[in-house]
Amino acid sequence: MVNFVFQNPTKIVFGKGVLSQVGAEVSKYGKKALLVYGKNSIKANGVYDKVIASLNKSNIEVIEFNGVKGNPILSHAKEGIDLAKKYKVDLVLAVGGGSVLDEAKAIAAGAICESDIWDFFTAKKAVTEALPIITVLTLPATGSEMNGGMVITNELTCEKFGMGGVQALYPKVSFLDPETTYSLSLTQTAYACSDIMTHLLEGYFTTKAKTMPVQDGYIEGIAKAVMTSMLNIIDNSTDYNARAHFMWGATLGWNGIGALGIPGGSLPSHALEHPISAIYDIAHGAGLSITTVAWLKYRKEQIAPRILQFGRNILGVETESTDKVIDSLEAFYTKIGTPTRFIGAGIEVPDFDLLVNHSERLFKAWRIYGYTKEDLLAMYKIML
Amino acid sequence: MVNFVFQNPTKIVFGKGVLSQVGAEVSKYGKKALLVYGKNSIKANGVYDKVIASLNKSNIEVIEFNGVKGNPILSHAKEGIDLAKKYKVDLVLAVGGGSVLDEAKAIAAGAICESDIWDFFTAKKAVTEALPIITVLTLPATGSEMNGGMVITNELTCEKFGMGGVQALYPKVSFLDPETTYSLSLTQTAYACSDIMTHLLEGYFTTKAKTMPVQDGYIEGIAKAVMTSMLNIIDNSTDYNARAHFMWGATLGWNGIGALGIPGGSLPSHALEHPISAIYDIAHGAGLSITTVAWLKYRKEQIAPRILQFGRNILGVETESTDKVIDSLEAFYTKIGTPTRFIGAGIEVPDFDLLVNHSERLFKAWRIYGYTKEDLLAMYKIML
Repeated sequence: MVNFVFQNPTKIVFGKGVLSQVGAEVSKYGKKALLVYGKNSIKANGVYDKVIASLNKSNIEVIEFNGVKGNPILSHAKEGIDLAKKYKVDLVLAVGGGSVLDEAKAIAAGAICESDIWDFFTAKKAVTEALPIITVLTLPATGSEMNGGMVITNELTCEKFGMGGVQALYPKVSFLDPETTYSLSLTQTAYACSDIMTHLLEGYFTTKAKTMPVQDGYIEGIAKAVMTSMLNIIDNSTDYNARAHFMWGATLGWNGIGALGIPGGSLPSHALEHPISAIYDIAHGAGLSITTVAWLKYRKEQIAPRILQFGRNILGVETESTDKVIDSLEAFYTKIGTPTRFIGAGIEVPDFDLLVNHSERLFKAWRIYGYTKEDLLAMYKIML
Repeated sequence: MVNFVFQNPTKIVFGKGVLSQVGAEVSKYGKKALLVYGKNSIKANGVYDKVIASLNKSNIEVIEFNGVKGNPILSHAKEGIDLAKKYKVDLVLAVGGGSVLDEAKAIAAGAICESDIWDFFTAKKAVTEALPIITVLTLPATGSEMNGGMVITNELTCEKFGMGGVQALYPKVSFLDPETTYSLSLTQTAYACSDIMTHLLEGYFTTKAKTMPVQDGYIEGIAKAVMTSMLNIIDNSTDYNARAHFMWGATLGWNGIGALGIPGGSLPSHALEHPISAIYDIAHGAGLSITTVAWLKYRKEQIAPRILQFGRNILGVETESTDKVIDSLEAFYTKIGTPTRFIGAGIEVPDFDLLVNHSERLFKAWRIYGYTKEDLLAMYKIML
């Protein structure tokens, strides 16, 4: 186990009916909130009305800012920053999925600085402060509700960059009501499942450690729980317990704990995926099931013991064949409805040069060593 | 899953050599620290010197207060409070195991109030503020380094009372260096193992839920890791990874996460144990292995599916016999060296009346329903 520092101060308010408490928590941080959301889904499923009613009850002044895209873009975040500055809001309230939460974080950081926020993403400057961030999560997947990370796409350069573990970006409070996720389609839920699994498994697959009982136990336990819950949701999309376990598993999957102390862990599936969703604007989770399968196929000899342990302890597949384990994972992805090849995401003729060039930068920035341009190209070709 | 609120702000600094950072962290909270510790063990293993050197480097004035007992007692905590008030310390620095940490928390709460701190334990008053608490953990077991709980024994009344989840009692920072635990005896480590396992398993055994994928995954994963690490420590007591996984598993075992959302979870093994260690002054962990086995034997019919799942997923015992699972747990406890009967803890003639009367109060205070005095007596008799 390698040394680590961990601190996660986010307050989680979890369960049925908790949105009625939003106003009371918001009022601890100010009187004027920038309400950030996407399009119409939170109006269609009633979340918007519940949040507004609670804010009204606590006399919170609300400045609305909507239109956040699935892969949130820099120019839109900058519009939000202008609005936050214009109205001098006290805090940012994000209502939506990981994209909304991430853009809200960018706005919260940008609202109290004068420089271009893209400098944060290119690591020219560090985020040291931000307006208080409060979130109401409606699409469990990215873990942004309980972590200090955010990802934004610069649509002018097709760069999808992010950061993690920034203290100022941990939400003060996050509300998680599993009933708000009933309206998610099975496809959205499947993409979320792929995202959560990748968060849990990248360190697990890439570690240099032969044994790491605590992290393995944590990761295997949560990953199995999320997969089981996904199958239960397919059987009944309004099964409260299935939605609740899926939602809480998503938060535990990327709130920092799973990665603590893992020697040599890195994020190759993410570094291969960001260029795909940045260029083709597909769902991040859909991209991750494609890149995870390709990465495993390409690295199966180097990490055979880990793949076999994954098969045994998570998939329940007793075998000495890494191919069989990877086939089993691919079958799970296919069963729940997330793609494992480019074509499944509607990408017929991928631009390999662009993908390789972009991902090469990410592998370098994220210190993922041991991959040449040829390796990256070979992995992208496996995705055909 | 039932509704919950969770917030755990403690900063964890984990790994080799981290004690050199104690002074720098302490200095964020003040210039004068009350240093609370036990007897000589932290001087014998070098921890005291390392902590003092780091404090000196940051020019922290240190008021020493030692002599904390294994089951910390009220009168000693009150001496600490007097000292903290006399010297107007800015914070309390605890160096030791769970007992030292708990007494330090009582001192931190008592140092800024005028009333009798026993009122906190009898629930006459609530702890709403305390001096900042910083800890250096040397005996992983109780989870006190990352939770808002504390337990103190009133030696005049033989009452061992506690509380949990109090925001003011979460340490600001806790330092966990696995190398500081090399000097623990295998017996101390075995008692710790029993304590950690009980923390994880009480909710698991007592829940009303038939399935709870996330909590089961978390609990099974961490419990297996701690048990595996215990066996590795028996093989080699200075195996860094074994000590590190054991230490971090202990923290994850009782930092609140494992119990979140569990319907109907309660703490009967603890409520049976507190009277034992309060009256006979045995190690808490030694008492817990005794009460856990007895409780399981007494309740095996009501919770058969949970016991069989425990056997299958944690002990690796495939059977349909609850007796075989309980035998297997008892064999594990015996193998590592923690008792499963009174006699193993040196208690030859237990005072059943006293035990039953004391535990009856705890069952009531902790809202553990469905047990008569006869039930309590029957369970204590199983421990013979």
